[in-house]
Amino acid sequence: MVWNTNLRWRLPVTCLLLQVALVVLFGVFVRYDSDADPHWIDSKMQQNSTSDLENEFYYRYPSFQDVHVMIFVGFGFLMTFLQRYGYSSVGFNFLLAAFGIQWALLMQGWFHSYHQGYIHVGVENLINADFCVGSVCVAFGAVLGKVSPVQLLIMTLFQVTLFSVNEYILLSLLEVKDAGGSMTIHTFGAYFGLTVTWILYRPSLHQSKERQSAVYHSDLFAMIGTLFLWMYWPSFNSAVSNHGDAQHRAAINTYCSLAACVLTSVAMSSALHKKGKLDMVHIQNATLAGGVAVGTAAEMMLMPYGSLIVGFICGIVSTLGFVYLTPFLESRLRIQDTCGIHNLHGIPGIIGGIVGAVTASCASSDVYGVKGLAIAFGFDGFKTNWNASMQGKFQAAGIFVSLAMALVGGIIVGIILKLPFWGQPADENCFEDSVYWEMPEEPKSTVLHPEDSTLKPSEP
Amino acid sequence: MVWNTNLRWRLPVTCLLLQVALVVLFGVFVRYDSDADPHWIDSKMQQNSTSDLENEFYYRYPSFQDVHVMIFVGFGFLMTFLQRYGYSSVGFNFLLAAFGIQWALLMQGWFHSYHQGYIHVGVENLINADFCVGSVCVAFGAVLGKVSPVQLLIMTLFQVTLFSVNEYILLSLLEVKDAGGSMTIHTFGAYFGLTVTWILYRPSLHQSKERQSAVYHSDLFAMIGTLFLWMYWPSFNSAVSNHGDAQHRAAINTYCSLAACVLTSVAMSSALHKKGKLDMVHIQNATLAGGVAVGTAAEMMLMPYGSLIVGFICGIVSTLGFVYLTPFLESRLRIQDTCGIHNLHGIPGIIGGIVGAVTASCASSDVYGVKGLAIAFGFDGFKTNWNASMQGKFQAAGIFVSLAMALVGGIIVGIILKLPFWGQPADENCFEDSVYWEMPEEPKSTVLHPEDSTLKPSEP
Amino acid sequence: MVWNTNLRWRLPVTCLLLQVALVVLFGVFVRYDSDADPHWIDSKMQQNSTSDLENEFYYRYPSFQDVHVMIFVGFGFLMTFLQRYGYSSVGFNFLLAAFGIQWALLMQGWFHSYHQGYIHVGVENLINADFCVGSVCVAFGAVLGKVSPVQLLIMTLFQVTLFSVNEYILLSLLEVKDAGGSMTIHTFGAYFGLTVTWILYRPSLHQSKERQSAVYHSDLFAMIGTLFLWMYWPSFNSAVSNHGDAQHRAAINTYCSLAACVLTSVAMSSALHKKGKLDMVHIQNATLAGGVAVGTAAEMMLMPYGSLIVGFICGIVSTLGFVYLTPFLESRLRIQDTCGIHNLHGIPGIIGGIVGAVTASCASSDVYGVKGLAIAFGFDGFKTNWNASMQGKFQAAGIFVSLAMALVGGIIVGIILKLPFWGQPADENCFEDSVYWEMPEEPKSTVLHPEDSTLKPSEP
Repeated sequence: MVWNTNLRWRLPVTCLLLQVALVVLFGVFVRYDSDADPHWIDSKMQQNSTSDLENEFYYRYPSFQDVHVMIFVGFGFLMTFLQRYGYSSVGFNFLLAAFGIQWALLMQGWFHSYHQGYIHVGVENLINADFCVGSVCVAFGAVLGKVSPVQLLIMTLFQVTLFSVNEYILLSLLEVKDAGGSMTIHTFGAYFGLTVTWILYRPSLHQSKERQSAVYHSDLFAMIGTLFLWMYWPSFNSAVSNHGDAQHRAAINTYCSLAACVLTSVAMSSALHKKGKLDMVHIQNATLAGGVAVGTAAEMMLMPYGSLIVGFICGIVSTLGFVYLTPFLESRLRIQDTCGIHNLHGIPGIIGGIVGAVTASCASSDVYGVKGLAIAFGFDGFKTNWNASMQGKFQAAGIFVSLAMALVGGIIVGIILKLPFWGQPADENCFEDSVYWEMPEEPKSTVLHPEDSTLKPSEP
Repeated sequence: MVWNTNLRWRLPVTCLLLQVALVVLFGVFVRYDSDADPHWIDSKMQQNSTSDLENEFYYRYPSFQDVHVMIFVGFGFLMTFLQRYGYSSVGFNFLLAAFGIQWALLMQGWFHSYHQGYIHVGVENLINADFCVGSVCVAFGAVLGKVSPVQLLIMTLFQVTLFSVNEYILLSLLEVKDAGGSMTIHTFGAYFGLTVTWILYRPSLHQSKERQSAVYHSDLFAMIGTLFLWMYWPSFNSAVSNHGDAQHRAAINTYCSLAACVLTSVAMSSALHKKGKLDMVHIQNATLAGGVAVGTAAEMMLMPYGSLIVGFICGIVSTLGFVYLTPFLESRLRIQDTCGIHNLHGIPGIIGGIVGAVTASCASSDVYGVKGLAIAFGFDGFKTNWNASMQGKFQAAGIFVSLAMALVGGIIVGIILKLPFWGQPADENCFEDSVYWEMPEEPKSTVLHPEDSTLKPSEP
Repeated sequence: MVWNTNLRWRLPVTCLLLQVALVVLFGVFVRYDSDADPHWIDSKMQQNSTSDLENEFYYRYPSFQDVHVMIFVGFGFLMTFLQRYGYSSVGFNFLLAAFGIQWALLMQGWFHSYHQGYIHVGVENLINADFCVGSVCVAFGAVLGKVSPVQLLIMTLFQVTLFSVNEYILLSLLEVKDAGGSMTIHTFGAYFGLTVTWILYRPSLHQSKERQSAVYHSDLFAMIGTLFLWMYWPSFNSAVSNHGDAQHRAAINTYCSLAACVLTSVAMSSALHKKGKLDMVHIQNATLAGGVAVGTAAEMMLMPYGSLIVGFICGIVSTLGFVYLTPFLESRLRIQDTCGIHNLHGIPGIIGGIVGAVTASCASSDVYGVKGLAIAFGFDGFKTNWNASMQGKFQAAGIFVSLAMALVGGIIVGIILKLPFWGQPADENCFEDSVYWEMPEEPKSTVLHPEDSTLKPSEP
């Protein structure tokens, strides 16, 4: 199949149309929330607050910046492992995320921050917009190398919309707790992406097989992404939790889970190689599964050892997935999952949903305290008559809703992306930057010379 | 033209002299400010403050660290895009910034933190010192590859001095608001650097043209710089704003402006290429122009859609600048601007100054609240009789003062740097690390072997 | 000497056994501390605290994240300077740190956070665990390239244990102040690592000499590590200091010391090269010595100029060490110190201990205030009858205890690691990733083509 990959008018027009629409919608709908408005001084005095620190900014901004790094450097560089797709990995991720966060501010704003005709944005909205885009970055991992930037913008437009609907159903209708987004971000993002790539199946993709692997330095660039994701994941899972002990606990649980996950990933990677050697793909990906899988339960009383167990299991499951499941999905189910997101976000996301449901259903006032339990699950509001067991059931329902939204949405979006005029690359040109990027000239001879012998003498 | 590039005595003597002078001046002048002094406990009790968190450290330190990353990793790696100048880009940036922050602590301290014979430094001084050095990093981008580290230290010495004078005129005499430094940092830094490189014009620079471009991996290193600048820019523009809503608002506005800027940069990059391909230079640079251009107005009531519009325009203007203006400046005006700082900091800086002046002159107590307006522009102090329109005029004056200081200062410093004994490289040796760096030997054969066939067997 | 380097069962079994043991021990011993427990709401109300911000999380979490980045990206990438050991540098550092932080939470917990049968962990424990692992990362630098991951896990197990004992002796028995760990982290870590590498001496290591150097891009990767260490070091030295002025002061002092250190490192690097060229090894390492050497005194009244002097001296001493001492240690004392940790952590660590002892013994209530002095050194608790001079003597004693622990511990652990069944590489295979890693295939032809001539046409 051969398509026209010249994006000269399609990409600029798409970008400019979307951005103009965003400007108009922001003009009509978006205002600052009270903590970011100059009238804050008045409300501070009314509330007898003595300290500027009570501004939400100081509670959330450091976490926001960590999440921001995860989205742009973390996901962006994680995908640079491909030898000839570094520009696109970092660059397209940059593009789709920059568009996605704006659209997410609107979509999530309409559902959650809409008062008196306006969306009121503050730092928590910025975090949630980054979260939403995180789910698009996950899906990007499945289709990486096989789609054009125009397709990615279209996919982002729809996925952010669907994400927001799904999130609204889970958080507002089902009253599910999902601070780190095991269900809303990872499960939804992964199965959405897998469905899209299934629809976009390319039977002759083996023609660009040689570029679908790493070279030495591309693997090191990818480790930059891995480590920034790994290090800042405690901020990710705690960023929008309740103030105080909930944020604190979410960070500790995530830290523990991720640490355990590294050891079991390494163990499995070595055990599954005939000479006991480690595989960079596992170190780059499976080590992160522990963060995904405590996304829902991190702010609950999972306990440090519970977090270790979750990380322990996910490191094993994720590495096994890379070795056995990804090839199976490709050969039997025709699902070409470039980055193996099924192993990093799909299965661990579902595990995370289940862990969250079980942990919630085990909650009791013995463990949380009477007041603590009410605050942790919102049992003090209109959920007065709820109990832990009900919460657990609704949590479990959240998993299925997310899966259903991902599958149905993925099919629709996949079909739209299959249209022949989005500038997608031919099968033999996949995973290749030069389709969409002006490439630097290769240096004529060896670029490096040990001593300046080739330099003209500087001294007479 | 051939100069002696052996820096054996010139560089060490320069570094040591400067550092000894700094030690002496710090000994005479620099003390901790009250929030970093052990007597803080006494003043805390006097003020009936109940919380250690009221220490300025907790308001500003996370922002400081983000700014710090921008200066050292952001600017340092942004300039590694050159194929043979990575050591120098990162290394010289490291050197000049490490010197510059110390000198800036003194210079800015004398102007703004001098009480009872001493400069009192706290976390806000550290941020401002980093800001000041940011302007030197901008100017470094114009002369990158064409100057010796000795020249850079001399330039830093003078530029920090001039920056501080200019900043004093703007902030203290003209009472201008410029929290993110569109005028003081970017406009001043860019036109200072452009003037210096104009004075240092090298007619035969085409001899090292082949090294004035990227290779594949050098572009990926540069993206590390781009992304850390992009992600942390909200911290940059909000770091020294008033506590509470002003910091909060500055972060939101910068976030919005930068996001819009990415889409229009990508659009223009593709539209200006005959096959619609993207150019890494634009993605690395023009995407940041939105952060520069909301530097002055970010803390004001620019509104989220206002920020989007600013970013929208700057992405377009900046990319156009790279394609049309930079070649024109070089061929017609003899301004050799290695990194295209005119497009990233020059024009967007001026736009930022104008946006700030307009936004300030539109300020009203309807929008800000009576108290909010007084706090935002300092109308409650000795500026009691000021109004928004006056503020706007003074803001506009700030642009011209910054430009004048940059041009005059740049000419003087350029002439000093033109002296023949600073160890500058010959025209044919520009953009080449091996002039100033001990280079690693190139590996004899292919450095990488897929399997360990070349390794001696480990097992008998 | 030839060993079996197939780790297929040894590495997985070691990892899994350790992780299972950790899960069990966490289950028995580890609980959340009161600030991370849902009952925090009750204690907050009892203490009449009006603000959620009083949770320790908000005081320490931003510093924790900075320290976290230093351990995983800082140390990990600093060691990627070797041309063929990037996977192992980043990957093994990741593995040992992930194991080490868990084990450190237990060991340090038993000594410092053990109440009513449980270890109570909060954000400060996470920071201290990272600190403890920092000392293992230091020691890793000495043996880098010459040990297997199994050996590293064994070394981590013992070193964390010894670190915790040493730390307990210093902080709890000798009542030493060492917030940034000049003694506990750097001196102990460096001399422990040097002793281990001395025991593991390899007489034929010259066989892999060609791989014991950098290539162009590996040096740039290493600069990522250097810069993140350098930038976040103020957070490192202030992370566990007392709230308020002590944290603030520690950050300022470290900022100053590091800045001065860069200038003198550059000066010496140039002065010691026959053509005045800079050496990347010095820029990557010696520039950091200033952070090590203010580790103990940073929170004390060292004064900004005092910090500059410390940084000034350390830049010189450290660079001299790389040029003269490291070769001497290798040829005469048979200490093969891959990363030159003696120059970056060993000597500067001891200098830091001495600076701390001197600064402490000069403390007076004139400088600190009566209350300030009591708080800074804990003279208000059971140390009521202490004075500054006593504190200074105990500080000095701390240096010798750390050295003794390092030497004795290093000999024992070195002998254990010398056992022949840990999968260590042969002398000719040191500094080589392919021993333990599945390597990517080298691209057949030139991997990069300037234009897409090799691509099949996308348009008909």
